[in-house]
Amino acid sequence: MKKILTCSIIFLSLNIFSQTKEDSVQFAKISREILNNGKAYTELRDLTKNIGHRLSGSESYEKAVQWAAQELRNAGADKVWLQEVMVPVWVRGKESLQIKSAGKWTSLKMLSLGNSEGTGGKDVTGEIIMVKSMEEYDKLTPEQVKDKIVFFNYPFSQSFVETFKGYSDASKYRTTAASLTAKKGGKFAIIRSLSSAFDDVPHTGGMRYSDDHKIPAVAIGNTTADELAELLVSKKITAKLNSNCGIKGEKLSHSVIGEITGKKDSQVIVVGGHLDSWDVGEGAHDDGAGIVQSIEVIRTFKKLEIRNSHTIRVVCFANEENGVKGGIQYGKAAKENNEKHLFAIETDAGGFSPRGISLNMEEVQRKKIQSWSELFLPYGIYDFTGNFSGTDLYPLHDMGVPTAELVPDSQRYFDIHHTEEDTFEKVNRRELLLGASALTQILYMVDKNW
Amino acid sequence: MKKILTCSIIFLSLNIFSQTKEDSVQFAKISREILNNGKAYTELRDLTKNIGHRLSGSESYEKAVQWAAQELRNAGADKVWLQEVMVPVWVRGKESLQIKSAGKWTSLKMLSLGNSEGTGGKDVTGEIIMVKSMEEYDKLTPEQVKDKIVFFNYPFSQSFVETFKGYSDASKYRTTAASLTAKKGGKFAIIRSLSSAFDDVPHTGGMRYSDDHKIPAVAIGNTTADELAELLVSKKITAKLNSNCGIKGEKLSHSVIGEITGKKDSQVIVVGGHLDSWDVGEGAHDDGAGIVQSIEVIRTFKKLEIRNSHTIRVVCFANEENGVKGGIQYGKAAKENNEKHLFAIETDAGGFSPRGISLNMEEVQRKKIQSWSELFLPYGIYDFTGNFSGTDLYPLHDMGVPTAELVPDSQRYFDIHHTEEDTFEKVNRRELLLGASALTQILYMVDKNW
Repeated sequence: MKKILTCSIIFLSLNIFSQTKEDSVQFAKISREILNNGKAYTELRDLTKNIGHRLSGSESYEKAVQWAAQELRNAGADKVWLQEVMVPVWVRGKESLQIKSAGKWTSLKMLSLGNSEGTGGKDVTGEIIMVKSMEEYDKLTPEQVKDKIVFFNYPFSQSFVETFKGYSDASKYRTTAASLTAKKGGKFAIIRSLSSAFDDVPHTGGMRYSDDHKIPAVAIGNTTADELAELLVSKKITAKLNSNCGIKGEKLSHSVIGEITGKKDSQVIVVGGHLDSWDVGEGAHDDGAGIVQSIEVIRTFKKLEIRNSHTIRVVCFANEENGVKGGIQYGKAAKENNEKHLFAIETDAGGFSPRGISLNMEEVQRKKIQSWSELFLPYGIYDFTGNFSGTDLYPLHDMGVPTAELVPDSQRYFDIHHTEEDTFEKVNRRELLLGASALTQILYMVDKNW
Repeated sequence: MKKILTCSIIFLSLNIFSQTKEDSVQFAKISREILNNGKAYTELRDLTKNIGHRLSGSESYEKAVQWAAQELRNAGADKVWLQEVMVPVWVRGKESLQIKSAGKWTSLKMLSLGNSEGTGGKDVTGEIIMVKSMEEYDKLTPEQVKDKIVFFNYPFSQSFVETFKGYSDASKYRTTAASLTAKKGGKFAIIRSLSSAFDDVPHTGGMRYSDDHKIPAVAIGNTTADELAELLVSKKITAKLNSNCGIKGEKLSHSVIGEITGKKDSQVIVVGGHLDSWDVGEGAHDDGAGIVQSIEVIRTFKKLEIRNSHTIRVVCFANEENGVKGGIQYGKAAKENNEKHLFAIETDAGGFSPRGISLNMEEVQRKKIQSWSELFLPYGIYDFTGNFSGTDLYPLHDMGVPTAELVPDSQRYFDIHHTEEDTFEKVNRRELLLGASALTQILYMVDKNW
């Protein structure tokens, strides 16, 4: 009995050893193929330079839909289709913010926040009052705020090593400033940008109204915020906003889906990013990078002739930035069509050097993936401790699907996130490709072992 | 007895636990202090924009010496001094490379390699022959090479995940191309740049002559290399080089040293980088970053009032790029003055997000440092497997001093290394500061536990 047990253990160990060896050879093949022949970088150049930014409901978004469908076909997808989804149409239009200091009007660099209503093309003028935090704002009475412009000058914290924590810490100012200001009778809200940089680039991004009293909210860059704060120490400053933004109804749009069919069954493994972007810059890191990395996964499976057991599906989600309608519709359709999803991973944190994979799933599944971590180490991927997943995947997660997100180095992301500066030039070819390689590697493992 | 043993174990465990807790609190303080108040980034702007590149023997290098001494004083060093060292003076001068194709001369973007002799201001002309590898070159007879220009078109390998491996793989072409060409009677050598980018930026860098037959060696960018290779498929191409570079003797120069005295003894712990750079770009990543990170260590010890037991010394080494005379002189002086060095770490791999610390020392010392690795994990530093250390530290290493090197993310380094593109704009503030934080953390641990 003991002998049999020993033999079994040896056999099992050898089997695990040879499995690991086989996987590590496959990991190396994937990495080499992508670093040498990956198309993600040139595809991203094409998307960002020939289409550019692509807000939901815009003409350029619909161009991006056709582009993504074609790229998925080029990559070797067996099946490509568009998934219909109604998306909100938010339009920026012309906008300006001026301040009056020492009798003179000066223009400030600014961006209306996404989803914000504007002033309807009229000048809205008022005195600025500044608060440095939510707590400070909470202490103000409606009398103090009435007819004023509230400037929320809360700085992005540099203290966190992971910048997503700084972003998360400051994001309530972006989402709630307008409604909080409206509740106490203010005319509009100005926020300091959610920016880790020390520059003057304003960052847009989604805000929300908590009720029907919809006043405008705009963001200014950090340098302008500092200068304004300085002026406010000793002076009364009047601001004048004129803007035309707002939600102009909704529109039929599409997520783009491509897949390579499983040889064993029709169960689905998803990798995706979002195809839409804000209406400034080129949406290169956010999230053009995620789109081209996801397409690279299919290209690599085909090129290396990895015969997938389950269906590998790339989803280019519509409308992540201002509504998540694509993600919600994808979940709904999956339920209606009774599709079984084994696993889904999103890449929406920029095309930087990958460092980890965040796992939002049951402990037993986390442990399984964590047991593969040694395989990833030679590729600089060591962190499997995160427990979040991409916004677009929450509908799947809520249906019980194990979801995940690629975790790249976060140091540079919030310098350029949602700005004119999020351009192709800010993306490094090798960093982008290493992310695509990590996604291909994790999909290979899930497909083989799930 | 058992009870006593149990008590001892509990006491020991509690002690280790409270030590770890104390260290982890100190690590957090260091990181927060540097991310919020670090001066490295603004110092680097000053060094790169107001002094710029600073090759050994140049006027700008001597300006950098004065600058570094002042910054060390500003940072709070108890003692600052200059260490004399003779350095080679290599001067580039005017240079041009042209090719004749279809009867027309065209200029190519190029840089003479550092240490290379030039043509003495005369035109040197010859037919180009291309080889793709050393093996291919070895097969050529002296008759085939005689009077020719040899173009070594060996590409930087994209296959390695760590780009230093690609650099190391290709670097023999840069160091040996001229002497190999000379040995078979060629007139000069052209190499494809040691570049991970897909652009046309030529990379300079050190070369060596193996004997007194000194012919010129120049580098061209990747795009030019590809175009030239394409032309050579079907045509005979003549090249014409005119250059004035060469070693113009040697000169008295200085490494810059600053320290904070140990409260317990005079044993020394070194952190350093090299103050010199190549004569193109601004030497921002290579190695302005390492200089300002090292100075940040002293500033942080002082600011946080970390009372160091041993002397913490910053060394800004002279002449790393083309002679390592500063490193050699430092080792020599340490021996002559009978100084005991406990540990030395260099930062000379770019100011990118740190990922690890490479340890070039006895196994027992490696193990000790590796036992601290959990403390570094929240700062994205997980890799303690490397076994190399900085070039300037080899003299110390050879004397038995444990040496180390900071290991940042390597993906972008060889896009800009030794080029016009190595400028301040390529450095990210947070990435640079996280490197300084890692250095301060490791020095705090070594000082406390060695």
